[in-house]
Amino acid sequence: MILALAGGVGGARLAQGLVQVLEPGQLAIVVNVGDDFEHLGLHVSPDLDTVMYTLGGVHNPDTGWGRAGETWNFLATLGRIGGDTWFRLGDNDLAVHLERTRRLRAGEPLSRITADFCRGFGIAHAVMPATDDRLRTFVDTDAGELAFQEYFVRQRCEPVVRGFRFEGAQGARACAPLAALAAAGAPHIDGIVLCPSNPWLSVAPLLAVRELAALVDAPSIPVVAVSPIVGGDAIKGPAAKIMRELGHPVDVSGVVAHYGRRVDGWVVDERDRGFAAAIEAAGQRVAVTDTMMTGPARAAALARTALALLDALRTG
Amino acid sequence: MILALAGGVGGARLAQGLVQVLEPGQLAIVVNVGDDFEHLGLHVSPDLDTVMYTLGGVHNPDTGWGRAGETWNFLATLGRIGGDTWFRLGDNDLAVHLERTRRLRAGEPLSRITADFCRGFGIAHAVMPATDDRLRTFVDTDAGELAFQEYFVRQRCEPVVRGFRFEGAQGARACAPLAALAAAGAPHIDGIVLCPSNPWLSVAPLLAVRELAALVDAPSIPVVAVSPIVGGDAIKGPAAKIMRELGHPVDVSGVVAHYGRRVDGWVVDERDRGFAAAIEAAGQRVAVTDTMMTGPARAAALARTALALLDALRTG
Repeated sequence: MILALAGGVGGARLAQGLVQVLEPGQLAIVVNVGDDFEHLGLHVSPDLDTVMYTLGGVHNPDTGWGRAGETWNFLATLGRIGGDTWFRLGDNDLAVHLERTRRLRAGEPLSRITADFCRGFGIAHAVMPATDDRLRTFVDTDAGELAFQEYFVRQRCEPVVRGFRFEGAQGARACAPLAALAAAGAPHIDGIVLCPSNPWLSVAPLLAVRELAALVDAPSIPVVAVSPIVGGDAIKGPAAKIMRELGHPVDVSGVVAHYGRRVDGWVVDERDRGFAAAIEAAGQRVAVTDTMMTGPARAAALARTALALLDALRTG
Repeated sequence: MILALAGGVGGARLAQGLVQVLEPGQLAIVVNVGDDFEHLGLHVSPDLDTVMYTLGGVHNPDTGWGRAGETWNFLATLGRIGGDTWFRLGDNDLAVHLERTRRLRAGEPLSRITADFCRGFGIAHAVMPATDDRLRTFVDTDAGELAFQEYFVRQRCEPVVRGFRFEGAQGARACAPLAALAAAGAPHIDGIVLCPSNPWLSVAPLLAVRELAALVDAPSIPVVAVSPIVGGDAIKGPAAKIMRELGHPVDVSGVVAHYGRRVDGWVVDERDRGFAAAIEAAGQRVAVTDTMMTGPARAAALARTALALLDALRTG
């Protein structure tokens, strides 16, 4: 059993690779919920949906969020009657938010709702939120502390970042299926893959769930990270900007230092081959490959590289 | 000032005629909310929306509900993830339900929300719910008591009707703008038009609001009804079926008997000319005209006939 820890786009792409390589019983994709928020009375789970749409083959590859061939009539009418249109909710997409909200209000856990929805999209592999409890990312910026979507969508990541707070993390327990995996423990978990998602915005709120952090920190479970930084920049999103603002070097060394001893092996891009020696000198394994997941086949190749590195770590 | 009491389709069509004939300050359209219900966590107001879409010129004239050129992607995805799709919610339509629900939850009255939405659809005349309080129509049938939409949409009006109950009617007060009109009283209200809506399903729950019934019953305010029954059948909807099931004659005499002394003047279709003498003999005025509102011009002509009859009643 492999656990993959995923945020939005980068996580969804590597997940798309992993599902091609691993059988349904061999993979659990654990997704960030720190970006979740309430909008227009709806519970929106952006990363869960990006992973679900991507694995379901209905995602919009151009935007990195939402559905392919989406329509926007809901939003057009909402604007006409004076509603709040800053967060783009497509007509198809909206059904997921509305039905999720209805079921959450009826007392069902997010993990069960997610499993049902994924089945509806024909996804055979397990996809789950890190926690069914409320966990919310807040960004401390030079414009004050902002709720995640306020920072990310409304203010387009423009404020300068000083730090993060994961509200609810103290009390957040792993969702039931993840807790079951954690209880089975190390002998049943062959490795963990940290997907190339934003280490601060996507992976940190995952690791804020104590049981998940404990699995990552378990000495017997190898952990491989795929670098989200390639050639000194992020493929997508504000990771590079955030690293700069936090005073980290904006390159592979910055993310390697950030994860530190939590990661046993690194998959870095060919452009970052120069960092391999330093990482190995610090006692971590490195695989160098083309990490650009421009399509499902490339994602599968990257997944194979990450899994091979996990194998190598396991067998010493 | 003229009050028009309206349900869905028939009411909306006559309202479309009245707005062509009367200035905005001369007309208030008071709409049934007995059909309102909660669906998928949304507050749906079918009659208010039918009136609003019709007056806004965005209605679907073929179905009698919903928007012209509507898309159904929300519902398609909802079905895919196992949601409840028996009630057809279009993508444009959904925005109205969602934003209404959000504002109701925030404590705003339905009448204010309705006024704002109508402004968004470019409607200059006042449209308001009979009440901002909860008032719900239940239908007593041979299949037990059914919530209105359960009877109307889900069971397609198939159960045999025995009676009606308007839950909340005892405590329901007129919405604020209607209460203000009622407080101004008879001198400021020149007449009331009962639109050709279903007398049992649409007009009865309007008259279940005490202040509205009091206005209709005020001797100094003339009341004209446009018959919803033409040639022994309803133009649309289950009125004829319900009349049969309740043991009323399924013709103009059935609705005339139903409203009784509440109505001072009747507008009946040319096909029902034969009933005019009996109605006049019972002391009510009658105007005979073509009541088929096949388009806005025909609706305006019918509105003029109804208003002329009100005029005639007022001047004796």
